[in-house]
Amino acid sequence: MDMDMNRARDRGSRERLVVIGGDAAGMSAASQARRLRGPDELEIVAFERGHFTSFSACGIPYWVGGDVAERDELIARTPGEHRARDIDLRMRTEVTEIDVAAGRVHARDVDSGAESWTSYDKLVIATGARPIRPDMPGAEAPGVHGVQTLDDGEALLASLARARGRRAVVVGAGYIGVEMAEALIKRGYEVTVVNRGKEPMSMLDPDMGRLVHRAMTGLGITMVDGAEVTKMLTGDDGRVRAVATGDAEYPADVVVLGIGVEPETALARAAGLPLGPHGGLLTDRAMRVRGHENIWAGGDCVEVLDLVSGLYRYVPLGTHANKHGQVIGTNAGGGYATFPGVVGTAVSKVCDLEIARTGLREKDAHRVGLRYETVTVESTSRAGYYPGASPMTVKMLAEHRTGRLLGVQIVGREGAAKRVDVAAVALTAGMTVEQMTSLDLGYAPPFSPVWDPVLVAARKATAKVRATTT
Amino acid sequence: MDMDMNRARDRGSRERLVVIGGDAAGMSAASQARRLRGPDELEIVAFERGHFTSFSACGIPYWVGGDVAERDELIARTPGEHRARDIDLRMRTEVTEIDVAAGRVHARDVDSGAESWTSYDKLVIATGARPIRPDMPGAEAPGVHGVQTLDDGEALLASLARARGRRAVVVGAGYIGVEMAEALIKRGYEVTVVNRGKEPMSMLDPDMGRLVHRAMTGLGITMVDGAEVTKMLTGDDGRVRAVATGDAEYPADVVVLGIGVEPETALARAAGLPLGPHGGLLTDRAMRVRGHENIWAGGDCVEVLDLVSGLYRYVPLGTHANKHGQVIGTNAGGGYATFPGVVGTAVSKVCDLEIARTGLREKDAHRVGLRYETVTVESTSRAGYYPGASPMTVKMLAEHRTGRLLGVQIVGREGAAKRVDVAAVALTAGMTVEQMTSLDLGYAPPFSPVWDPVLVAARKATAKVRATTT
Repeated sequence: MDMDMNRARDRGSRERLVVIGGDAAGMSAASQARRLRGPDELEIVAFERGHFTSFSACGIPYWVGGDVAERDELIARTPGEHRARDIDLRMRTEVTEIDVAAGRVHARDVDSGAESWTSYDKLVIATGARPIRPDMPGAEAPGVHGVQTLDDGEALLASLARARGRRAVVVGAGYIGVEMAEALIKRGYEVTVVNRGKEPMSMLDPDMGRLVHRAMTGLGITMVDGAEVTKMLTGDDGRVRAVATGDAEYPADVVVLGIGVEPETALARAAGLPLGPHGGLLTDRAMRVRGHENIWAGGDCVEVLDLVSGLYRYVPLGTHANKHGQVIGTNAGGGYATFPGVVGTAVSKVCDLEIARTGLREKDAHRVGLRYETVTVESTSRAGYYPGASPMTVKMLAEHRTGRLLGVQIVGREGAAKRVDVAAVALTAGMTVEQMTSLDLGYAPPFSPVWDPVLVAARKATAKVRATTT
Repeated sequence: MDMDMNRARDRGSRERLVVIGGDAAGMSAASQARRLRGPDELEIVAFERGHFTSFSACGIPYWVGGDVAERDELIARTPGEHRARDIDLRMRTEVTEIDVAAGRVHARDVDSGAESWTSYDKLVIATGARPIRPDMPGAEAPGVHGVQTLDDGEALLASLARARGRRAVVVGAGYIGVEMAEALIKRGYEVTVVNRGKEPMSMLDPDMGRLVHRAMTGLGITMVDGAEVTKMLTGDDGRVRAVATGDAEYPADVVVLGIGVEPETALARAAGLPLGPHGGLLTDRAMRVRGHENIWAGGDCVEVLDLVSGLYRYVPLGTHANKHGQVIGTNAGGGYATFPGVVGTAVSKVCDLEIARTGLREKDAHRVGLRYETVTVESTSRAGYYPGASPMTVKMLAEHRTGRLLGVQIVGREGAAKRVDVAAVALTAGMTVEQMTSLDLGYAPPFSPVWDPVLVAARKATAKVRATTT
């Protein structure tokens, strides 16, 4: 029996909180717990298998594209800063097993291979996500890159420096694929995006994705739609040289995978913890793993409740991870906080095109049995006469008969994306589109037409709901 | 007895809707009523005493400042366009009396002096506002200008062209005063702003107004605070030459009055219609004048319910006027719509400084007996590492104990002002600051730090409410 397990004897009355994963959710939880309880009351041990803590994965495209000069700008808090707050942070140390019955985790030092058990009173699982690697020939070849971690970013930058030509292929046209395509254009590459869907940005309905398609083509990006990548072809040196679909080959000096991530829950699965249909951990509102009083989970390894559809979804976003960490740390520190769920907000940018959505797309609504009306309006970011006013397209979904807001999608230029926040709050509050028509939104000519584009859409949606109800 | 009064006999079964005032509220009402009922069912007669219809008064500072080249860009719809929609629009015709008992209005042609009575089945009062003119010597002198109408704007531009020097004094530092000060700077004037308050922008608490003060001084504007203007001094030609306060004189080749407006309700008062404490008409939720089934009022001549304080306020803003018009037109056209009230949102811009508020200021909360906690946080418009991230100050008021959001004020650069919309929706929904902490707002590095500034404020406010409740 491991000595470490006799926790009461070894540590007196101090509790021990163990955190698996040193990124947003894990370290936010550790920091918040520390804020509430000092080191004399609570010992905090955190394991991170990589080289970095608390970094912005969302910033990687901007680092690769050259907008952000230094890797370290993407690091919110270094290991040293965490340690200065009395967090016993063990870097390059991978947790290999969770022993729930005994309340301990087994870890291995990645460099030395040394192994040990660490007991816990409270456990936080924040193991994050891993990029989906296509299971096909050549997928692991040099020159093929994910962009999930800072290590990935460094490897990609090194690969770009080494590449013989300036042809890049991006696989996938979700927001990571789209942002990476722009980054590579900025570095002077010829960029081809191979996309399984008919339009890029499947976070949008296809009619709105079409607008993004047009903007990407306008940037000089070659769009290959409705194409499934079947293999990566390699050269004599073993390095990737092309991406093959069923009927074509796209030469590539470098390939970036933007086909998404999946929850990193192998440890949790082996420990018998409850996983949902998307492979993520299932928690309650306090972010406690279901059925486990003293285990919490958050960030990219959990599923979240979608407040609009009522279903659990997998939404790996840094903003949720930070909120989860805050809630977990509060609860693990003896306080009380909850994370009620998400409404599905996401924003992105391609060159000067801003893209946003919240709530349900048409196919989401359809899937959960919601009948809806939809309107699409063209408006402007500012009063039409004010310099810099730019066009903006707003699509709105409202439930048939009740008129409850179901979702909003926006594509436009400066000032478009964050307008979706109004709809995110309205969704959270369960407003109808008619209630939205009288929202007291900020108006002045430099910021909005006298009817904000979101209100124009709400008016049209109200009229449509009325017309189809009577 | 006027023949026009025998309405059933003269017009068969057609109803007549009479609208007094051809700007946002009046013409929106007329247009919406027309949309719902054709000319065979509803006759619409609208009276406007000025030269223009449906113009953007809010755009006048940008026209004067040169951002908007032509006056006509500020006109949303011309008299001809209204007439093309079967609205019998009588320009330069002033209504001089409302005879509620007989259901008729008396009007006078401003140019010819011709007078007549027009009967109505339904009446819309949209008489707008008039600028507050200080009652002091010289207030009516040439060179002293209000900026309420397009005629005012033309007079000011003509005056600027005629002015002998380049010194301008703006009286008042509300948003009109502040916007006009910037416009005059853009035209190459030396600008002095004489302000009764200690800080400009009394729509903000003084601690936030201080930030605006600093920006205005930075623009080269001379700020005279806590000073009451006592008279306008005139030269031998009768034109204004200086503005005098109790103890100083400020030379002026032109003076702009930015001391606000008051409801234009002399007609309504004479007709015995109900007015509130601010002199505006009082309506119900359907925008009907209280106690009158067939009379509606909206725009700058009415008071509105403040949903946060529960009191009626006077909030003359184009955005409300348009909504009122829409609601009135729907109801007068036989449909159903309501205007529930405002939460007090306002946004403005001085150079690249964006200013926003919604809900209650400290003094508003105090006045209505609400005890509150307040926090002020510094954050940034984008992820700190993303190019163009700029500082943003957010102040938040939450009710003591309950934590209900009471108000938000924001001062920052690009992307700051419209963030207040999130708080406007949250106020409408009656959210607590703790509920706000889990709002699913859009996050991507070009648009926001991982914790949106509004969420940072909500977190801090939540902590403060908790700390003061236990």
